[in-house]
Amino acid sequence: MNKGLLIVVSAPSGCGKGTILGEVLKEDNFYYSVSATTRCPREGEVNGVNYHFISKEEFQERIDSNGMLEYAEYCGNYYGTPRKEVEQMRLEGKDVILEIEVKGAMKVRTLCPDAIFVFIAPPSVKELERRLRKRGTETDDVIAKRVSEAANELTYAPKYDYLIVNGALEKAVDDFKTVIKAEKLKACYATEILDEVINNA
Amino acid sequence: MNKGLLIVVSAPSGCGKGTILGEVLKEDNFYYSVSATTRCPREGEVNGVNYHFISKEEFQERIDSNGMLEYAEYCGNYYGTPRKEVEQMRLEGKDVILEIEVKGAMKVRTLCPDAIFVFIAPPSVKELERRLRKRGTETDDVIAKRVSEAANELTYAPKYDYLIVNGALEKAVDDFKTVIKAEKLKACYATEILDEVINNA
Repeated sequence: MNKGLLIVVSAPSGCGKGTILGEVLKEDNFYYSVSATTRCPREGEVNGVNYHFISKEEFQERIDSNGMLEYAEYCGNYYGTPRKEVEQMRLEGKDVILEIEVKGAMKVRTLCPDAIFVFIAPPSVKELERRLRKRGTETDDVIAKRVSEAANELTYAPKYDYLIVNGALEKAVDDFKTVIKAEKLKACYATEILDEVINNA
Repeated sequence: MNKGLLIVVSAPSGCGKGTILGEVLKEDNFYYSVSATTRCPREGEVNGVNYHFISKEEFQERIDSNGMLEYAEYCGNYYGTPRKEVEQMRLEGKDVILEIEVKGAMKVRTLCPDAIFVFIAPPSVKELERRLRKRGTETDDVIAKRVSEAANELTYAPKYDYLIVNGALEKAVDDFKTVIKAEKLKACYATEILDEVINNA
């Protein structure tokens, strides 16, 4: 059996990344890697679903024992990707999805040269702003900040392997699945298949 | 408009490459690059369809003026890929398919780092042998030679970008189209799309 893929996904907030991944994860073959954090759970957040909530001591131990694939400190708390879980799932043949922001993704790029990097973009920054306004849940200041962050994150897109523009959900989901399907046809993963071609009766 | 892709396809004889490409070429966006040769046309062969039949002098002039993307001599005749046609079609946004054998493909790999390399394999060498026997058009000697050539060509497959195993035609055609679709989502080609995302209203 071939090892599963490691797929790193980044997207500015408001691009519909969650919705796209929700559709993709309906297929059995995918495994969504849950991050670990030292911050306290917010209301409604479930341990092991939204995050693995662990203590600062435990997080530090994991860092020291090389147990985090990548991690970052943000507002006094750690956030990171547990390495063991990712590797175990890949060995079981599952395609593991890591949802991380651009800087974390670039770290994984260096650490896991076989990972696939997918950037999800809004159809336009203006459209992203319209979507955020339409929600009506954020102040003008917060929207302005989000839009400016999105514009900054978009400068990282050319460093990814694939760019998916989420103009229409169905097409974006289809594009995502196309990328995975094509990656599985990569000749560099095909050692076993070639063995079969050469030796099977 | 983005430049079209350059797709180099190789396959051992008897793998159904012609049938797969026939299906793929039904779509407007593809252009099949016709090779040039100095050999005489065989019965039924049409100039500009099967080959561009040109004189040795003209072929030599084209080599001298860097007009051949790659070429090889075989049984005293030249065979090659006219560069101008390939580049013109790509500039018009067409995806150009080059059908060449493994050694020519490896030359193009060096000359065109942006080309995509697809290897089409039979489900097994044994099955290839069965298919060749079933045709009933070749002697045992010729079949043995073809099978041994196929086994040799298969050793080049890991040097290609993608491996498509032609077990069932429909799936192989679908795999081929998936590869092209995914290649068009590559972030490195997305400069124009990103400009639009950032600047469009």
